[in-house]
Amino acid sequence: MIQVSIVMGSKSDLEVMQNCMNQLKEFGIGYEVRILSAHRTPSEAHGYAKALRERGIKVVIAAAGGAAHLAGVIAGVTTLPVIGVPMQTSALGGMDSLLSTVQMPKGIPVATVAIGKAGAANAAILAAQMIGVEDEAMAIKLDDFKVQMAKTVLADSEIETYEGN
Amino acid sequence: MIQVSIVMGSKSDLEVMQNCMNQLKEFGIGYEVRILSAHRTPSEAHGYAKALRERGIKVVIAAAGGAAHLAGVIAGVTTLPVIGVPMQTSALGGMDSLLSTVQMPKGIPVATVAIGKAGAANAAILAAQMIGVEDEAMAIKLDDFKVQMAKTVLADSEIETYEGN
Amino acid sequence: MIQVSIVMGSKSDLEVMQNCMNQLKEFGIGYEVRILSAHRTPSEAHGYAKALRERGIKVVIAAAGGAAHLAGVIAGVTTLPVIGVPMQTSALGGMDSLLSTVQMPKGIPVATVAIGKAGAANAAILAAQMIGVEDEAMAIKLDDFKVQMAKTVLADSEIETYEGN
Amino acid sequence: MIQVSIVMGSKSDLEVMQNCMNQLKEFGIGYEVRILSAHRTPSEAHGYAKALRERGIKVVIAAAGGAAHLAGVIAGVTTLPVIGVPMQTSALGGMDSLLSTVQMPKGIPVATVAIGKAGAANAAILAAQMIGVEDEAMAIKLDDFKVQMAKTVLADSEIETYEGN
Amino acid sequence: MIQVSIVMGSKSDLEVMQNCMNQLKEFGIGYEVRILSAHRTPSEAHGYAKALRERGIKVVIAAAGGAAHLAGVIAGVTTLPVIGVPMQTSALGGMDSLLSTVQMPKGIPVATVAIGKAGAANAAILAAQMIGVEDEAMAIKLDDFKVQMAKTVLADSEIETYEGN
Amino acid sequence: MIQVSIVMGSKSDLEVMQNCMNQLKEFGIGYEVRILSAHRTPSEAHGYAKALRERGIKVVIAAAGGAAHLAGVIAGVTTLPVIGVPMQTSALGGMDSLLSTVQMPKGIPVATVAIGKAGAANAAILAAQMIGVEDEAMAIKLDDFKVQMAKTVLADSEIETYEGN
Amino acid sequence: MIQVSIVMGSKSDLEVMQNCMNQLKEFGIGYEVRILSAHRTPSEAHGYAKALRERGIKVVIAAAGGAAHLAGVIAGVTTLPVIGVPMQTSALGGMDSLLSTVQMPKGIPVATVAIGKAGAANAAILAAQMIGVEDEAMAIKLDDFKVQMAKTVLADSEIETYEGN
Amino acid sequence: MIQVSIVMGSKSDLEVMQNCMNQLKEFGIGYEVRILSAHRTPSEAHGYAKALRERGIKVVIAAAGGAAHLAGVIAGVTTLPVIGVPMQTSALGGMDSLLSTVQMPKGIPVATVAIGKAGAANAAILAAQMIGVEDEAMAIKLDDFKVQMAKTVLADSEIETYEGN
Repeated sequence: MIQVSIVMGSKSDLEVMQNCMNQLKEFGIGYEVRILSAHRTPSEAHGYAKALRERGIKVVIAAAGGAAHLAGVIAGVTTLPVIGVPMQTSALGGMDSLLSTVQMPKGIPVATVAIGKAGAANAAILAAQMIGVEDEAMAIKLDDFKVQMAKTVLADSEIETYEGN
Repeated sequence: MIQVSIVMGSKSDLEVMQNCMNQLKEFGIGYEVRILSAHRTPSEAHGYAKALRERGIKVVIAAAGGAAHLAGVIAGVTTLPVIGVPMQTSALGGMDSLLSTVQMPKGIPVATVAIGKAGAANAAILAAQMIGVEDEAMAIKLDDFKVQMAKTVLADSEIETYEGN
Repeated sequence: MIQVSIVMGSKSDLEVMQNCMNQLKEFGIGYEVRILSAHRTPSEAHGYAKALRERGIKVVIAAAGGAAHLAGVIAGVTTLPVIGVPMQTSALGGMDSLLSTVQMPKGIPVATVAIGKAGAANAAILAAQMIGVEDEAMAIKLDDFKVQMAKTVLADSEIETYEGN
Repeated sequence: MIQVSIVMGSKSDLEVMQNCMNQLKEFGIGYEVRILSAHRTPSEAHGYAKALRERGIKVVIAAAGGAAHLAGVIAGVTTLPVIGVPMQTSALGGMDSLLSTVQMPKGIPVATVAIGKAGAANAAILAAQMIGVEDEAMAIKLDDFKVQMAKTVLADSEIETYEGN
Repeated sequence: MIQVSIVMGSKSDLEVMQNCMNQLKEFGIGYEVRILSAHRTPSEAHGYAKALRERGIKVVIAAAGGAAHLAGVIAGVTTLPVIGVPMQTSALGGMDSLLSTVQMPKGIPVATVAIGKAGAANAAILAAQMIGVEDEAMAIKLDDFKVQMAKTVLADSEIETYEGN
Repeated sequence: MIQVSIVMGSKSDLEVMQNCMNQLKEFGIGYEVRILSAHRTPSEAHGYAKALRERGIKVVIAAAGGAAHLAGVIAGVTTLPVIGVPMQTSALGGMDSLLSTVQMPKGIPVATVAIGKAGAANAAILAAQMIGVEDEAMAIKLDDFKVQMAKTVLADSEIETYEGN
Repeated sequence: MIQVSIVMGSKSDLEVMQNCMNQLKEFGIGYEVRILSAHRTPSEAHGYAKALRERGIKVVIAAAGGAAHLAGVIAGVTTLPVIGVPMQTSALGGMDSLLSTVQMPKGIPVATVAIGKAGAANAAILAAQMIGVEDEAMAIKLDDFKVQMAKTVLADSEIETYEGN
Repeated sequence: MIQVSIVMGSKSDLEVMQNCMNQLKEFGIGYEVRILSAHRTPSEAHGYAKALRERGIKVVIAAAGGAAHLAGVIAGVTTLPVIGVPMQTSALGGMDSLLSTVQMPKGIPVATVAIGKAGAANAAILAAQMIGVEDEAMAIKLDDFKVQMAKTVLADSEIETYEGN
């Protein structure tokens, strides 16, 4: 069952968004990945986004860089929650992507996560959390994920002690 | 039934967050509002956040300004989706609040919305969208809301025509 | 004859954009003004933008603030030149509007002018310049405008002389 | 027929501006390329810009970095539309070039596009759009270009589907 | 004898630049003030700047805001030292003015001072220092000024002592 | 007993720094307040800073705005811990003060706190913490302060509950 | 005797923080290093921080990047002075880490040092200065360190003289 | 005859400042180069700066990065004109160096040039311009330099012409 739609504005975003796909797979959440541009394929982006809810998709993840309009444009045509992942950019580091994604006007939220790789993975976790609001099994997976993260940190937490002189 | 928890770091955030509360009321979504600081009341913030899921809360909205750690800290102890609202600040306009809220490390997402009032209202809509993933009635309310927004814009869309000379 | 379409994302942009309308009127260029949002009225914005060329419109001016997607979205569906006016914003001064408007991906340019009032007036002048590429009368008006501007500055250029001691 | 003048402040901008030249060629638009500096060759820059309209040039594209005054200085002496391309810079990423190009005072617009390569290509497209205001053949080329862009994206749009478990 | 030329891009800069004029008067340095725009009156600005050295002017102070090209443009046509004063701006606080003034390319320096009032006064002091390189009397005035500044601070330096408990 | 020296670059910083003085008084920590400028009174600033340790002062708090060199300059001549408070500025909001204070080179740290009022008060608390490293009574006061802060927040934490419909 | 606790949010911070550890060793100050995350291991971070004072630790150094909450979160549960080291980040250079660390609300200071390596070393020196408030031997070491730094600079200060022509 | 003093805060600035030295040599202007830190060698920096005028030095060029206090500190103790060169930095690109150098308070100007290499060379040209205020021979060299720069640009100005189709 496909629960998450991942849309990105350009194929060059795919490498970073692989972090998102991997994380969804780790949770066993079905997804589909589409390249669709708010500017280059506006009709298709609209059409695709409009049909998502009745296809049973629950969450949309949209990644774009620069004047990153994709997440906002999708949020304009669906009532599903839309997660925006700002891509890092060469000139401004992703500050442009971040502001274009997060500073949405009243009425049309985009759930924005961190710039780049960390954001890509976190978009998947956030999608899982949204699904887990009603899906008890997913909530348990998220708990396990949290416990595992803590364990990984703690397993190798004590780095060094120096007694001084 | 209380579905949303609104937490803010300081009582001075209340006026802006009223936009969030109003919007939730408009959707008929039950909520509770708490002042809890990641820094001034860390134990209580932890304890409160940890208990949320089993109390039946579905979404957390956390508002803070400056070094805005509240949303991130809550996201560290719950598996519920956490929406972060960066407050506008006097010195840096809210750039500090935005970066402190959105730039979360891999593993702990915060669904960040716009700085200030627009973000406060959008946090409520995003919460409604998350609830609406499984709640058909809420999805319909969101559709109506979208239709109504469009109508409001279109009712007064044609401002002026000047024929030139 | 209406040659320019002015679109803005919110009625609150109207006051600033009056500077644009006034300047077009000064040039005798016909225009129409519409409130249309890339997010709140996406279908209407698309439909409106798509029809512009065959209606004989020559240039589009789009004003928006924050995650200012309007100009980019219109540029996605028309081959007319689109001028983007970034609105000043309370939190970030308009840096968000500027980056969201100007940092367009390869393939879909937006001709971006300055943030706020100066940009609003300059959008009108830029539209006149685009029209003046083929329209000799408009080119002459632009020359006169330039001459007049210089005269105004020079009329009151010598402010003060202090001979020192 | 030469319709577009490309001016750049330094030969080091040539590599990036090749994206502009390539795009103009793709549209079959005649152009000439000059290295002229607002600061190092002010008289020649003035003289060159002043003569452009009567030479039949329709649009100027000016590229510069840092305190990027070239586009603004040219816009001061011609009534042709001037497109500014901010170059990426090593220290500030091109934020300096962008602000120096776009924040023009009332009376003298510069049609600013994105920083760097994307902006260089988009300057060519924007020039084509300006020419296409009256040139039907160019308008058709622009339509084809848009259709082709969409086709390229859509040809490879469906990246992956994972059914979940 | 007029030793300093103060040029500003707009009459609206006059109030801030009064701080510069006052400081020059305090040093008894002759000056003249002109409104001349790099964009609105390019020929006059060029002509004016070119004639400065042979008129016996020693230092130019140029104030402008936004895409502040005035100082750079003047520096392009004179070999006199040019001091740039970035004006504070409503949208970006003067960051645009600062970067447009200071980030000059190799070959054409502008001696940039602080944004706004402090910069206006400091431009006068810097001009006095340049004149004082060879003018012993001016050097003594600058020493006196420094001593006086220190005295003013020290006269009222001990604000409060609290002994604790 | 005077344990803390508060130095500020200008009398205009006094109002904000009153928050620091009040907080020190609340802890019963003796302090003295001096206006001394790194630039206007360099010798006095050096002399004053050099004598601090042997006068029994334990911590220095230095407040300055813009190119805020005061804390760094004092840190260059004393081995006492120096706390820097960046003042909010009109043009750049205090980003200039912050970067000038915090970005110290290897070898000369400045303990930087938040821009403006919050930073002024926090400088006092940080000074108390430094003193409290060895002073048990101060450590207890800091514990009480923490407890009291939490109590104040919690006393008025439950703002509103809305049951939804 | 362990006097300083170094905590970092991720093992990837270790290389930069080695500069801190080396500097502490140079002063002979005992320390321990822990990886603990404000978000991934919140309980352990709290528990660890709470126990520090009674274990005899005198100063905490916390390093984190992005939405860098670690220093602030630790400062929320201990009354020991907490030094925050903002890590450099790939997207925003460390501006996110800096603002998240330094812009703490009234009541909970974090003594913030420079971004990256210089900050890491300076955190150690600042810790030594805090310990040196009461520890005469440490104060002498700091004096020696200062003298040695000056000597190193001065030993190789005279780089070149060119007599001109 | 040594007319210019070049001071830099760290030997790592030497490579960039070589551009300054080369340019001074090209003008035949005598100079000396010293490594002196505002923070690591405050007394020597003061002493050195104080003696400059009576040693016959005419202009000081000070280069530093990060919290770049060197130019400001020297300007505090001499009445010679001080040119500040902000070094590019790894974390913030040199924005920290720029603001620390240029945002000087009223009374103590620093003549700031561009970040990095261009600024280093321009500092030399600006120094030559200051010397050229009274030194006719230097003024002629500057004229030649300007003419030569223009020639270099113009020699290779016509890059390409494409006739279109």
